[in-house]
Amino acid sequence: MEATARVKEILSWYPSDNPGTKTNIARMLNHGRLAGTGKMVILPVDQGFEHGPVRSFQPNPPAYDPDYHIQLAIDAGCNAYAAPLGFLEAVAGKFPGQMPLILKLNNSDTLSKGHSPASAVTGSVRDAIRLGCAAIGYTIYPGSAARNSMYQDLRGLAEEAKAHGLAVVVWSYPRGEGITDKAGETAVDVAGYAAQIACQLGAHVVKVKPPAEAIFQPEAKKVFEKFNIPIKTLADRVRHVVQSSFNGRRIVIFSGGEAKGTEDILNEVRELARGGAFGSIMGRNSFQRPHDEAVKLLRDVMDVFAGK
Amino acid sequence: MEATARVKEILSWYPSDNPGTKTNIARMLNHGRLAGTGKMVILPVDQGFEHGPVRSFQPNPPAYDPDYHIQLAIDAGCNAYAAPLGFLEAVAGKFPGQMPLILKLNNSDTLSKGHSPASAVTGSVRDAIRLGCAAIGYTIYPGSAARNSMYQDLRGLAEEAKAHGLAVVVWSYPRGEGITDKAGETAVDVAGYAAQIACQLGAHVVKVKPPAEAIFQPEAKKVFEKFNIPIKTLADRVRHVVQSSFNGRRIVIFSGGEAKGTEDILNEVRELARGGAFGSIMGRNSFQRPHDEAVKLLRDVMDVFAGK
Amino acid sequence: MEATARVKEILSWYPSDNPGTKTNIARMLNHGRLAGTGKMVILPVDQGFEHGPVRSFQPNPPAYDPDYHIQLAIDAGCNAYAAPLGFLEAVAGKFPGQMPLILKLNNSDTLSKGHSPASAVTGSVRDAIRLGCAAIGYTIYPGSAARNSMYQDLRGLAEEAKAHGLAVVVWSYPRGEGITDKAGETAVDVAGYAAQIACQLGAHVVKVKPPAEAIFQPEAKKVFEKFNIPIKTLADRVRHVVQSSFNGRRIVIFSGGEAKGTEDILNEVRELARGGAFGSIMGRNSFQRPHDEAVKLLRDVMDVFAGK
Amino acid sequence: MEATARVKEILSWYPSDNPGTKTNIARMLNHGRLAGTGKMVILPVDQGFEHGPVRSFQPNPPAYDPDYHIQLAIDAGCNAYAAPLGFLEAVAGKFPGQMPLILKLNNSDTLSKGHSPASAVTGSVRDAIRLGCAAIGYTIYPGSAARNSMYQDLRGLAEEAKAHGLAVVVWSYPRGEGITDKAGETAVDVAGYAAQIACQLGAHVVKVKPPAEAIFQPEAKKVFEKFNIPIKTLADRVRHVVQSSFNGRRIVIFSGGEAKGTEDILNEVRELARGGAFGSIMGRNSFQRPHDEAVKLLRDVMDVFAGK
Amino acid sequence: MEATARVKEILSWYPSDNPGTKTNIARMLNHGRLAGTGKMVILPVDQGFEHGPVRSFQPNPPAYDPDYHIQLAIDAGCNAYAAPLGFLEAVAGKFPGQMPLILKLNNSDTLSKGHSPASAVTGSVRDAIRLGCAAIGYTIYPGSAARNSMYQDLRGLAEEAKAHGLAVVVWSYPRGEGITDKAGETAVDVAGYAAQIACQLGAHVVKVKPPAEAIFQPEAKKVFEKFNIPIKTLADRVRHVVQSSFNGRRIVIFSGGEAKGTEDILNEVRELARGGAFGSIMGRNSFQRPHDEAVKLLRDVMDVFAGK
Repeated sequence: MEATARVKEILSWYPSDNPGTKTNIARMLNHGRLAGTGKMVILPVDQGFEHGPVRSFQPNPPAYDPDYHIQLAIDAGCNAYAAPLGFLEAVAGKFPGQMPLILKLNNSDTLSKGHSPASAVTGSVRDAIRLGCAAIGYTIYPGSAARNSMYQDLRGLAEEAKAHGLAVVVWSYPRGEGITDKAGETAVDVAGYAAQIACQLGAHVVKVKPPAEAIFQPEAKKVFEKFNIPIKTLADRVRHVVQSSFNGRRIVIFSGGEAKGTEDILNEVRELARGGAFGSIMGRNSFQRPHDEAVKLLRDVMDVFAGK
Repeated sequence: MEATARVKEILSWYPSDNPGTKTNIARMLNHGRLAGTGKMVILPVDQGFEHGPVRSFQPNPPAYDPDYHIQLAIDAGCNAYAAPLGFLEAVAGKFPGQMPLILKLNNSDTLSKGHSPASAVTGSVRDAIRLGCAAIGYTIYPGSAARNSMYQDLRGLAEEAKAHGLAVVVWSYPRGEGITDKAGETAVDVAGYAAQIACQLGAHVVKVKPPAEAIFQPEAKKVFEKFNIPIKTLADRVRHVVQSSFNGRRIVIFSGGEAKGTEDILNEVRELARGGAFGSIMGRNSFQRPHDEAVKLLRDVMDVFAGK
Repeated sequence: MEATARVKEILSWYPSDNPGTKTNIARMLNHGRLAGTGKMVILPVDQGFEHGPVRSFQPNPPAYDPDYHIQLAIDAGCNAYAAPLGFLEAVAGKFPGQMPLILKLNNSDTLSKGHSPASAVTGSVRDAIRLGCAAIGYTIYPGSAARNSMYQDLRGLAEEAKAHGLAVVVWSYPRGEGITDKAGETAVDVAGYAAQIACQLGAHVVKVKPPAEAIFQPEAKKVFEKFNIPIKTLADRVRHVVQSSFNGRRIVIFSGGEAKGTEDILNEVRELARGGAFGSIMGRNSFQRPHDEAVKLLRDVMDVFAGK
Repeated sequence: MEATARVKEILSWYPSDNPGTKTNIARMLNHGRLAGTGKMVILPVDQGFEHGPVRSFQPNPPAYDPDYHIQLAIDAGCNAYAAPLGFLEAVAGKFPGQMPLILKLNNSDTLSKGHSPASAVTGSVRDAIRLGCAAIGYTIYPGSAARNSMYQDLRGLAEEAKAHGLAVVVWSYPRGEGITDKAGETAVDVAGYAAQIACQLGAHVVKVKPPAEAIFQPEAKKVFEKFNIPIKTLADRVRHVVQSSFNGRRIVIFSGGEAKGTEDILNEVRELARGGAFGSIMGRNSFQRPHDEAVKLLRDVMDVFAGK
Repeated sequence: MEATARVKEILSWYPSDNPGTKTNIARMLNHGRLAGTGKMVILPVDQGFEHGPVRSFQPNPPAYDPDYHIQLAIDAGCNAYAAPLGFLEAVAGKFPGQMPLILKLNNSDTLSKGHSPASAVTGSVRDAIRLGCAAIGYTIYPGSAARNSMYQDLRGLAEEAKAHGLAVVVWSYPRGEGITDKAGETAVDVAGYAAQIACQLGAHVVKVKPPAEAIFQPEAKKVFEKFNIPIKTLADRVRHVVQSSFNGRRIVIFSGGEAKGTEDILNEVRELARGGAFGSIMGRNSFQRPHDEAVKLLRDVMDVFAGK
């Protein structure tokens, strides 16, 4: 499709990327029901690896099947579908060109615990290329003692991806030794910092969790107080995270977290949209519902972002 | 041989692989007494490395000889023979083309104990190619503190293998720091999770142990109970593991574990078959028997899977 | 522009570099209001990564925007602008050729604490080349238990940079296990030693903090006392650091540290200039001020170095 | 020379190796006084590195000279001479083609103690090639916590060596954390297991220590007892180790250990020969004697293996 | 110059090196006042990195300047000048061909303490080539828990250096966990062992400290006593170290250690020469003196080795 003014504007924020990478960013922005709006709703399905199959798929057993998810993304009109190597290999050659794919290049399982949070690299840029993906995905854990290794692995993968005309999507989830209490993981200052790190590492699209009202770093707290930065509503806090992402010049999308009720989800999404979020990434809340309910929810979410 | 409908169906589950890899998956499915059925019985002999030669081979001394095992696999009509580098180098040039070979690329000995479970990489994809193998084999230990290194090594080897038209067989054996009690290693939720991880890492064939009735992860236990997932019989549990393997769209085979009586083995195999297992991998239970008994047992096992 | 006698002299100190690298050193020396004087004022903006966005940019919110900083460097007439990958990618393709760029190849965030100080490598020489940079930047932490890894990473990057005609700028910040008290980090002997290490590692430009009057190493203290080396004034101490940098045959510039009042800054800069410093690198003290104040301050600083 | 029937038989055990590697195995089997017999006596001189020069060479001072050893090997009619890089570099260009050379690619000194036993890699396959060697040599320490690294290093070196037509000789010395008492290092089950590991890792020639009567692993002990495996005489135990080496289809040679009297050595060698050993590797017991005595001893040892 | 008989003899000890490497060994042997004698006096200046600039250069402030040292080496007629990357880059392009250069490829600073002694690799073989060097220099610390890493790094660098026609000079300084008392670092047995290790690792030139009368390893002590090896005088001990260096078939030179009086130095050098040392490497004792005194001292040292 021809690029809309908004898509052109967004692409202008990536002036140093080659045409291949810009094309793949555009492929995602121009796909599905939100095509051309500059907003994005992505279906991510890595929970089979991250939480195990029974917890992830038993609530809606057709979801055990890798075909199910890409079809759900197609039916709902998502901008892209993100999954680990195995799930993408199972569908890439069967649904070629029907949905922009994001190959998640690292993953972590829950069978081993008690170490510095760190994911294993489970795919390569060459895998993403041979599977026809639009982007690679990578998760960093700012705050982990292993963060530098993760940043460095991302650095190499992102350089290779960009050289091959792929886009780079970074999940930035603060956790680990540096985040000494659980509330810190979603604190608004930490969320903004995590988004900034992802941007500085060269992400085109950043995915963070909806920020909570807490402030974790004492030095940051002083600044929030001194300048009276509003953080009361989720929209306020999203606005801070978007500003922390190169003043809104990077695509920042938000996850929904644990499964919850439809109205709660839509209310949260309305706040995200009010705060300037570029979209949502919604896994369990969609694929654990029956297919038609999930399609309806995803479309309702898209409508919020489309301002309908 | 011409591909049967069932083999064609199975091959359709690997739509993203190149013709070379599909050919090698087909080579295994189309070899031996189970050719064309979509079932597989594999002879694996890595116990010389894993448990030492005297424990492995003294019960049937001809088994000290590397020629013995490939001949046994040929005589019984197995789909493939899997072994470490040394054992395959000893036979590959002598029995060329007589049996699909799987080069086990990592192994662990029992002379050193007390560390995070981790195998040494003892062969390469280039070794597999020069030896005329159909597939590489690799063992992961989900639950080990060293799991991420093992996943990453597998990732690189699997990518290289697929690029060279080889298939990838993954042994997934949960153990180590994360599996805090022995029963957890064969718990049904852990078995399903272990199979899922192998599939997500890009395995074409997954090998796990027969799952026991225990459930290890508390979060998984809630799901099994909430949805009343049947796990009473081995067939029930195998069904869960097969479902956890991309809803049955990956070839999942089961080991027999420690040596035991013939009738016990066949009863177990009947349950595996009832649960939808794609086959068995049977080492000590075959090569520690006298040759003719072993051939008979392997054929009886094949007959169970063939539905005879 | 044609090289002045002073620039020619400075370039003669790098007799083993290829013409590409000499050209890039000259590009920085010949750019902006200090062009041709042999002095340098650089704008560095890595604080979004190092301290987080809210602490860095909230005092002057336009600074959240990556465009802001390069424009500030242009408006003030700096010699170069230094930033991490994300910030440079956001501007390199938009302001091509308007400002010599230094890609900071490693960075450290403050979300994880308590480890040996070490930065993650967050960019590559190829990134610097594709972004049209004049130099790479790299931070070492002499005194850290991880120092050898950092030196080795720098070694490889510097070799690659020089082979590709780039200049090498090294930030040398003593800290970590070997610097057993906080005062040691800015002690004059440690500052001189840190500058020497950077020079020996092949830096063309070295950036250190203004040295304090303390002496940290007992063996060094004996030498300072025996030879009555003057260290009372900042100019004295700067003179020692410059001498420690190959007797003044390397470009040594000084940071300003924490934000402070304009007059304090200018007084400090006058001392730096009196001691033979080649210039200043000034981040927070410039971009946290409103734009026009920052331009004025940077120009005032340049005037001090220009001897106006 | 033309290959004897026995040499042809031995070469048939390596059906997967390329002609270059077979040629180099043949070069060793066809050299010296045992040429064509299928037996091997090798002179190894790595003690300068492993134990230090004064302990190694002072008993016979001409042995300080690297020329001394290759001349001794020539004079005695050994099959090959094995040494670390420095010793081989000192002679390879001076005695070209006069003696098959084995470059020992890893070594360990005794100046540092108390760590997991592990050798440093001190040479490369390319070194072996430029020095005209017939084989590489490599030591593994089964039982060491560092064993997997050693196996993996060997794997890579062996693959490279075979691709370049070299043979692979592995010294397999059990030691380290897993071998909890000193007697375990030479226990017969451990010796057999160590030989098996070396064979599985792809060794063409395996070198172990003469096994003692102890049994270390409880699981192995049960098997020795159950099957009444004879281990009373050294010949019995050697027979078990040879059987554990692919049923005698790998060349297994034995070291002599500490220096001792001539008659003791010859008695031990007679037992080795009775048990089916393929030969001896004899360092200190030869080069610490005066030249002519050493030549006589080595020839007497060869005569035992030749059945004279 | 035409090679003297002695230089030809020395070169014959390196029969496996390519003509490029032999040429570079010859370049050093044929340069300066000792040209053709087979003796060597080298000026090494790495103390700026190793001890810091103020301790190293303040006693003779012109020594802060990198030009100073190569000029001193030229004026005194040394065989070669050795320094880290930064110091050589500062002079190589300015004094091309005037002095054989040795690029010290690893260095250690004193700002961080308490770890296993280990140097950082601070230069590369390609650096040595582009700077026109005759040799690379590398320091090993036998006895350190990190020794194996250092040996392995040296191995790779030495292989690359030799392939490119460079010579290899190894500083062998025992220290670390294995040398449990300070006296052990200079014990005569340890010195001989350290020299042997350097030779076995492929060094063409070995540099050790003058050995003291102590014996550190109990097993070595027994041998020294049993064979009555003379160690009373420094000449005796030097003789042992030279013998331990392939029976004198490697170039072994000695450092002078801490700065001391002229007559003490010359007395020590006379003992070195009496013991068969090939020369001296003299840093602080030369460059911390005023220029003319240093030239005189270096020439006096050369005269001792020249037998004048």
